Amino acid sequence: MDERLERYAELAVRVGANVQPGQEVFLLANVEHRDLARALTRQAYRAGAAYVHVLYNDMHVRRALIELGPDEALTYAPEWRKTFNESMTGNAMIGTTGDPEPELLADLDGERVGRAVPRELVEIRMRQMSEDSVNWVGVGAPNEGWARQVFGEPDVERLWEKVAFCMRLDEPDPVAAWQDHLARLEARCEGLNELGADALQYRGPGTDLTVGLLRNVRWMSGSTDTRDGIRYVANMPTEEVFTSPDARRTEGTIRSTMPLPLQGQIVRGLELTFEQGRAVRVEAETGADLIRSHFATIENADRLGEVALVTKESRVGRSGTIFYDVLFDENATCHIAYGMGLPFLVDGEPDDGLNVANMHVDFMVGGPELEVDALLADGTVVPLVRNEEWQLA
Amino acid sequence: MDERLERYAELAVRVGANVQPGQEVFLLANVEHRDLARALTRQAYRAGAAYVHVLYNDMHVRRALIELGPDEALTYAPEWRKTFNESMTGNAMIGTTGDPEPELLADLDGERVGRAVPRELVEIRMRQMSEDSVNWVGVGAPNEGWARQVFGEPDVERLWEKVAFCMRLDEPDPVAAWQDHLARLEARCEGLNELGADALQYRGPGTDLTVGLLRNVRWMSGSTDTRDGIRYVANMPTEEVFTSPDARRTEGTIRSTMPLPLQGQIVRGLELTFEQGRAVRVEAETGADLIRSHFATIENADRLGEVALVTKESRVGRSGTIFYDVLFDENATCHIAYGMGLPFLVDGEPDDGLNVANMHVDFMVGGPELEVDALLADGTVVPLVRNEEWQLA
Repeated sequence: MDERLERYAELAVRVGANVQPGQEVFLLANVEHRDLARALTRQAYRAGAAYVHVLYNDMHVRRALIELGPDEALTYAPEWRKTFNESMTGNAMIGTTGDPEPELLADLDGERVGRAVPRELVEIRMRQMSEDSVNWVGVGAPNEGWARQVFGEPDVERLWEKVAFCMRLDEPDPVAAWQDHLARLEARCEGLNELGADALQYRGPGTDLTVGLLRNVRWMSGSTDTRDGIRYVANMPTEEVFTSPDARRTEGTIRSTMPLPLQGQIVRGLELTFEQGRAVRVEAETGADLIRSHFATIENADRLGEVALVTKESRVGRSGTIFYDVLFDENATCHIAYGMGLPFLVDGEPDDGLNVANMHVDFMVGGPELEVDALLADGTVVPLVRNEEWQLA
Repeated sequence: MDERLERYAELAVRVGANVQPGQEVFLLANVEHRDLARALTRQAYRAGAAYVHVLYNDMHVRRALIELGPDEALTYAPEWRKTFNESMTGNAMIGTTGDPEPELLADLDGERVGRAVPRELVEIRMRQMSEDSVNWVGVGAPNEGWARQVFGEPDVERLWEKVAFCMRLDEPDPVAAWQDHLARLEARCEGLNELGADALQYRGPGTDLTVGLLRNVRWMSGSTDTRDGIRYVANMPTEEVFTSPDARRTEGTIRSTMPLPLQGQIVRGLELTFEQGRAVRVEAETGADLIRSHFATIENADRLGEVALVTKESRVGRSGTIFYDVLFDENATCHIAYGMGLPFLVDGEPDDGLNVANMHVDFMVGGPELEVDALLADGTVVPLVRNEEWQLA
């Protein structure tokens, strides 16, 4: 167990964030993730980190804030926390996921939960993502609560096995396995970039959506280079190829196909309808108010920032598990994000079609019945995904 | 259990830190103290806090720093952490104690452990203590590791009972019991201030020490007022009357009578010899290098900053428990601190005798055989403590 934990942490530090000697490392972890946080700290120092900053978050503290705190506290960004975020520029960041109680805030007012976003903090982070000035990774931290959410019982060992499978830790040489896998995704991106489609079309149960694409925005996969030339894999179980759409040209309705854990609530059965790029209708079985609160309070959150394609070779998908954790679930199947578009995908200057927003929320829309086509400028329709299989040569 | 936790947190928030409506609250807690940290957060919001900042620390992260980090990292004070500390000025602070693994760093090089002090952070905190610009409290957080250290088994319930006894939570009206108790200690201070002694003399097994006193430095007990007039009880299980000595006039040898948990090591059998105010010899069964490292690297850490008298009415002493936690153990019996003197005890301007240092470490020296006398300027000797009983009328 301990050896596995250290190997896992080493993979996250060396392949994921790719921590460079002399860099400071900013580690953000849930208070229930301390075993992994400690292993990541050790591995970061072994990789030559100058200093490892560990900041534990606690959803119960957040609950108290939303339930009992004054209104102004909801969006308050403390000076020290701004300094923390600013200090990440040029350094490495590791965030752990795996909420031990994904529905802790389910009984609170969704409007208030959604409004409780410290805008200035998100702004700093979004700027760093735009500049690509931080080599970072998100990594899942198995824990009892998370296992209970996934399996109905706190079987942490079983969760570890699922996570290890998604992370290719079962391979004799996980680092080499990752390189092969990333090359396969890279080939898909090349195909899509050559295709140069004008739009995507989604059809499925409850879904009929067209999303415009931008001429100078690339498709990308797993690994990224910072502006300083550090190659990192932000999303360790990555299985996606993704791009940022033309936020002005989304039309129609999209229905989510998996539960979406979000800020302590779970959004189920989400259905968004878009007109001229903006979401004009939000419906959901649970969590609709939370999403509506984002759209009402955060500028341009109601436009799309990302479209991503995932097929059934995905290890996350093959694991047959709903993880109730976006880092994993978004790699099980096709997904879309509302909020910020990704400026590092742009060749040259971004145009007005790339969305600018202090938020980025992915939700899953894929499944066996979803069909995704590329529409070319000349009217040609090119199938991309059928029955969760890749259609492009 | 939960009701007790909330009552305990409420006492710490309302009587201890005395959080004022509109204040921000800075909560520093070990990652194993999260149950109490959450209750304190709730109670702080209920008391009208504008915002509660919770910063969890983790001794395993500290261990990794000392064991694997570069030399410069040991004393590094991150910008965001300086901002955090600075932001406490004019606000409230709550620190939780009860180390789940007080000997976690016992096998590490004591010199390195002792050197790992971010001077600039301590400086900010010491300045706030000098100005008395923060209403704060330390409060014990029972947990399994702490209980194991105290009882040899993780009997958290038994530890809770001991802590509740020390905190007067067994009284029908704990707040009123605290007021009575603080008044008794206040009367002792008045007696000592009227006496106006020139020095204290300590005699006991291995101990023969004279400590000069300063004319314009008062004796104080439990409750303090901030410069803004907020009355708080910093040390919730307080049983002491204390003053800061003339750091130039310490002569002789003092032997500690209880184990002292300090930065992840336990100092046992400490014996300090002073000449002209400075410690010239440090001996201990364990942990001597850690103390020597403080004296070698932190200016004036080798001079005394506090003398405190505690007698056997102490609830902590009556509990018959070694807590391995200075917040409690220093209230079991007489103690002394090396390092910073307390400027808020001074009437008028502090003179050169009040020690200035970026450190303040209390250690226990009391016990049935310790005799403490006051020496008056005219040569009169006035017994203060015999057989742990108060001698002054």
